[in-house]
Amino acid sequence: MGSTKTSAKVVTGCMIIIGNEILSGRTQDTNLNYLAKALNELGVRMQEARVIPDVESVIVETVNECRAKFDYVFTTGGIGPTHDDITAACMAKAFDTELELHPDIVEVIKRREAPPEIMESRLLMARAPKGAVLIDNSTGGPQGFQIGNVFVMAGVPMVMQAMTDSLDNTRIPGGAPVRSRTIGAYLGESQVAKQLGKIQDQHPDVDLGSYPFYREDGYGTNLVVRGTDEVELEEMIEKIRAMIHSFDVEPIKE
Amino acid sequence: MGSTKTSAKVVTGCMIIIGNEILSGRTQDTNLNYLAKALNELGVRMQEARVIPDVESVIVETVNECRAKFDYVFTTGGIGPTHDDITAACMAKAFDTELELHPDIVEVIKRREAPPEIMESRLLMARAPKGAVLIDNSTGGPQGFQIGNVFVMAGVPMVMQAMTDSLDNTRIPGGAPVRSRTIGAYLGESQVAKQLGKIQDQHPDVDLGSYPFYREDGYGTNLVVRGTDEVELEEMIEKIRAMIHSFDVEPIKE
Repeated sequence: MGSTKTSAKVVTGCMIIIGNEILSGRTQDTNLNYLAKALNELGVRMQEARVIPDVESVIVETVNECRAKFDYVFTTGGIGPTHDDITAACMAKAFDTELELHPDIVEVIKRREAPPEIMESRLLMARAPKGAVLIDNSTGGPQGFQIGNVFVMAGVPMVMQAMTDSLDNTRIPGGAPVRSRTIGAYLGESQVAKQLGKIQDQHPDVDLGSYPFYREDGYGTNLVVRGTDEVELEEMIEKIRAMIHSFDVEPIKE
Repeated sequence: MGSTKTSAKVVTGCMIIIGNEILSGRTQDTNLNYLAKALNELGVRMQEARVIPDVESVIVETVNECRAKFDYVFTTGGIGPTHDDITAACMAKAFDTELELHPDIVEVIKRREAPPEIMESRLLMARAPKGAVLIDNSTGGPQGFQIGNVFVMAGVPMVMQAMTDSLDNTRIPGGAPVRSRTIGAYLGESQVAKQLGKIQDQHPDVDLGSYPFYREDGYGTNLVVRGTDEVELEEMIEKIRAMIHSFDVEPIKE
């Protein structure tokens, strides 16, 4: 809830997680959370995330839908050397361009020697659509790439994180960084619901969320305000603090 | 990769995670992984998952798109008592039906006494579209509900898990349970890539995935086969084991 200031353009982002292993439950995704936090700093609002299987038609369709709908798209997964790594080929198809071996990725791959058959497989990681611009990979492995407004990154968290860390506002001109403040209380959501709704109404540009928790010493609710105007966030936290005190309860710091 | 047997109908599922807190990075989702594993047992293939914000138009549109596209849809989040809990209302809108207070949920809520204003907020958790069938909640809190092929569950993991656990094949007639086997080796993905591709080609009905790992004692790859025919899975694992031995390396059990 809470639309953002109409005066400043909101820069939007979408994440596409490519990987059967997430959908099958084999692997717990952590890349969404990492990217979400990085986008807050870049001033990009993640508006949607999709987890899709390693199926060409689905990848191509999803990428084309999302790159038209959002300012930036970030994909993870499917850029390794095996038969199920089809992301680079799908990107070429989505952008209706050639798939080629990018010379700068080839160079990185060839730094480490390998027998011919293994090198042949490793070079599959150098595939990128014509015109792609690389994304640095400080782990020393093959780079990711950007084509149009789509950033294509690895699925292995360590590598995905290195690639994400290389992105900055010169490359992704976002808006003001998105900040959040949290305050909690041992009060049920139902107790605070009405007053929270009023506070949200008074501050339509800030997102006010409430998240129940259950602990050994009791249950309660964390209240989170999220927006770009730090003065307004502090104002709201003050209102929420006063509301908590009105129940004769002490707020807790999260 | 690996299409499923054409002889047996594949029962498909889609998950919709409703919640700004996931997209903002405040909360690490774990519900997708829990549902994915439960769907394997039910014989439902999760084909896609989407994370969307607490915005009415987005929820309604996404639900209508997904319920037409997949056999079953499972949503989590947005059924609490506060201003940002709009899932039940959105479901009524998506199904073009009335939103009402479901008497069986009202009964559960009224079991625990509360002052009038708090009870009024708590009763918001009894909202469900007309015609909804309830989903049990063994934690003792308000139930979830099913309308058409859409199952609407809580976002709090403990509650979501209780609701998921209540679903069985009488309610969701899936296919054969989906099983998987894993075998690993201290071999790079590039070393095994070619032979894996061949094994995948020989078994198009089984999904063969390879997942690199990096540990203190070296790097390697886990190989996962996934399908409904356990005999075929064992056959593939034997082929992969032989391939690993051909490198003079011992397979490792995961």
